[in-house]
Parts: sequence; structure tokens; C-alpha cells
Amino acid sequence: MGAGGTAGSLPRVTLVLGGARSGKSAHAEGLVEGNGGRPVYLATAAAGDAEMAERIAHHRARRGPRWQTVEEPLELAETLSRVTAPDAAVLVDCLTLWLSNLYGADRGVVDETNRLTHALEQVTGPVVLVSNEVGLGIVPDNALARRFRDDAGRLHQAVAEIADRVVFVAAGLPLTLKSVS
Amino acid sequence: MGAGGTAGSLPRVTLVLGGARSGKSAHAEGLVEGNGGRPVYLATAAAGDAEMAERIAHHRARRGPRWQTVEEPLELAETLSRVTAPDAAVLVDCLTLWLSNLYGADRGVVDETNRLTHALEQVTGPVVLVSNEVGLGIVPDNALARRFRDDAGRLHQAVAEIADRVVFVAAGLPLTLKSVS
Amino acid sequence: MGAGGTAGSLPRVTLVLGGARSGKSAHAEGLVEGNGGRPVYLATAAAGDAEMAERIAHHRARRGPRWQTVEEPLELAETLSRVTAPDAAVLVDCLTLWLSNLYGADRGVVDETNRLTHALEQVTGPVVLVSNEVGLGIVPDNALARRFRDDAGRLHQAVAEIADRVVFVAAGLPLTLKSVS
Repeated sequence: MGAGGTAGSLPRVTLVLGGARSGKSAHAEGLVEGNGGRPVYLATAAAGDAEMAERIAHHRARRGPRWQTVEEPLELAETLSRVTAPDAAVLVDCLTLWLSNLYGADRGVVDETNRLTHALEQVTGPVVLVSNEVGLGIVPDNALARRFRDDAGRLHQAVAEIADRVVFVAAGLPLTLKSVS
Repeated sequence: MGAGGTAGSLPRVTLVLGGARSGKSAHAEGLVEGNGGRPVYLATAAAGDAEMAERIAHHRARRGPRWQTVEEPLELAETLSRVTAPDAAVLVDCLTLWLSNLYGADRGVVDETNRLTHALEQVTGPVVLVSNEVGLGIVPDNALARRFRDDAGRLHQAVAEIADRVVFVAAGLPLTLKSVS
Repeated sequence: MGAGGTAGSLPRVTLVLGGARSGKSAHAEGLVEGNGGRPVYLATAAAGDAEMAERIAHHRARRGPRWQTVEEPLELAETLSRVTAPDAAVLVDCLTLWLSNLYGADRGVVDETNRLTHALEQVTGPVVLVSNEVGLGIVPDNALARRFRDDAGRLHQAVAEIADRVVFVAAGLPLTLKSVS
């Protein structure tokens, strides 16, 4: 029995980290679909520009009509409390976009991270969170980009600490960093 | 027996991913030399500027005179079909430079990726492909760089999918991401 | 028995690589504290600007008063020879800052890397070195940044080659790349 009383194979919280176009979203979708039950896609993206709109359409086409889609750029903790359920598996795609949205809305990152991890500890069904690893390049020139990668790194550490499973994806291939059985 | 009837230890297709100066090329050269048979270096670099010319000379000096060198910045699929052989092992160095050359020649990346993976499925001896992982830093400011890292990510996924072995190299140390025995 | 006659669990040389805010320093501190004996913090940072001063204060607060702190931005080899001891465990934080300081002081990177690895082969107690992986993003626009990530990559390869243990940290989670028992 998995977390939250489902018959699936997913634990309560899974974090899927990876680079740009690493296949992390497809891997996470496979985890959610393989779990059985209702797949729920919690999109943090807002289709604000053409590049992003194209990515969203591409991802939606790949997932197919079985998925329920919930769009929520900011209130991630509340939305997770509402949409998780024993008979569902929720995919959050992705945390770095959510962090970027927090910046745009001038929300405090530390408080929001705490609210997220608290909500993750209370979910009633499995959640898979996708995020971009952005801290492995050269130090960015501008201070905002440096702050963003610092905040992303801290957010990943906080979620990884409470996650049951953490996977790093490169070239479409998963590498397990943590697995609590 | 390895792929293609050689007596070596290499499978048909190996992908070696790594960062800048991660030791990925040296690792790949070791794989090819350890396989026995004729080592063939398929260079995608064109010595267009001083920085690149220096890198090429450095790599060539390390490999030594046993290696046959073939330079081909664009027609990778055709060249692989021609130079692979049961008694040879071919090192392609590297895919990201080839991708960059495709941009310069205004070739369609999706079509060229398909031609490459098709050619890799038909090779008559083992091939080791080296490529730079470029998707783990902060999102680049300019759209071309974003497109490049997206295309590189998709190319890596496509090659990794058909590869028998995928290795990630950091600080000169290999980490196996995939191994089909 | 660990290296250098201590009763601890650390080998002679450990390299901890990771991205920005990956938890690499905290992981390395845990290794040093778990080893027993006197923990020594060898800081290569100079508190030259507000951002760096804040990071140093944050790290110092986390370590607590048991730690001896030695600050040395440049003479890493000599300082290691002086502060390593059978009853101590030394944390060097971090190599990329040291490399940056070498640039500022116009020192030759190849010579200094050789002096460092030579000193590491002579240490009388365990050393844990922390460094930033910076080579996994898009190729930087400016030549200095490209040279820096090349030099950092070569430095990591050189230290990893003589290290007994190399660990990659992502989201606070260690992944062993090398372990000589």
C-alpha cells in the first residue's frame, strides 16, 4: 500500500529534479500514470508569453484527456490540500516556475516554502513535484539570477528533506538520490 | 562478444555526457582504446577560432598516433555509416558542437536528430558519442541560448533512448545512468 | 582506523562537489563533525562584499563554537600542511572561491593546482574539500567565464584523481562518485 491509502506504488512525496529538456516532466508523468487512480496535473505555469504557451500545449498533448488539469501559479499549499486524495495522484509542474511566480507577486520565499512543506506533510494522496536544477552553471552576472538560484537550491533542499523519494533525471534517465522504503 | 561482431567490450551505442572539462572526452577515449581494434576519432569541430584550435590540438596530442581522425562538422549520419566497422570503434566528439554546426548551416534539428538515431541503429561496429550537458544552469537571457539548450536536451534524450549505455562524467568520474546487458 | 592515525571514519582526502545552495557545505560539515576530533574550518572566502559577508556569517552560525576557523584566500597548500593533524579534521570551503582568488592575485592556476594536490598527498589528517560544479550550464558569453569553468573543471579532475572519496550533492543528498576502501 502506498501513502494515503491508495493501491498505487507511489510514496507520499516524490521530487523529480532535472535540467532543461531532461525528460523530467515525462518521467514524472510516467510515475503518476503508473500509480493508477485519477491523474491530476497541477500546473504552476501561466501562459503569459508565446514560448510558455507552446510548452504548455506540448505537455498537455502528451498527457492526454484522462488527466484533470488544475492551474495555480501561486497558492500551491492550499491547492495541494484541496486536490490531493486517496484515489488520485497529483503532479506539480513545476516548482521553479512557482518560485518565479512568487517573485512576480512579491511573496516571501521562506514563508511560502514553509507553507508548501507543511502542506506536503498533510497530503491525503501521493504527490510528485517536478523542478529545474539551475545551480550547476557559472555564477550569473546579475544579482536577481543569483538570488533565484539560491532560493531554488534552498527550496529543493527543503522539499527533498521531507520527500520519500528524490530522483534526478538526465537525458530522460532517472537516478535515485533518495528512497525511503 | 560486443555489438557488430567485434571482440571488444563496448556495446553498439554508448553516450557519454558531462560538463565542461569534466573529463568526458578522456573517459570516452579510454572506452574506445580499451575495446581493442582500430580507434577512429570522428571530430565534429571545425578549427574556426584560436580557442577551438587549441582544444583540438590538445585532444589530438592526448590520443596519440594510433587513432585515425575523420573531421565532419555536419554529415554525422552518413559518416557514421561509412566509418563504423566490426574491427573499429568510433568516438564522436562531440554532439553539442555538431548541434551548433547545424545551427550555423541552418539545418532542421529534428530531422537531423532522426537521421542520426536511424544511422546509430544501423552501425556495424561500436560507437561512443560525447556530449556536453548544458541544461543545469540558470535560464539564459537570450532566446537562442534557450533554444540551444532545449535542442541539446532533446538530442540527448533521443540518443540515450537508443543507447545501450549512458554515462555521466563529473570530475573525471563516470556514473552509469543506463546499462543494457 | 582512518587516514593519519585518527580514530575517525574519514579517509585522507574527500571532495564534495555540488551546485549553488545544494547543501554541499552542510554535508561536508556533517562529515567532519562525524569524524570526531577537532573540526577545523579553512575558509578561502574573503568578506569583500556584503553578499559574501552574509554567506560567511550564515555558515559560521551553523557550524557553532567548537570549530576552529582559519582564513586563507591564497596559500592553500601551505596552510593545509600546517593545520592538518592526526587529531583534527579539516574542511576547505571552497575550491572555486580559492580559484577565483588565484585569478585576482594573478597566480598560475596549473602550478597552484599542482602544489595543492602535492600538499594533499602529504596531509597528516583527513581533509574534506568543498567545491562548486559550474560546468553544466550553457557556454558563457564572456571568455573569462569560459576560462574559469575550464580551470574549475581541471582542478576538480586533479583533486578527484587523488581523492579517496568523491561525493556529488544535489538537493542536500549525497551521491558517491568514488570510494576507495
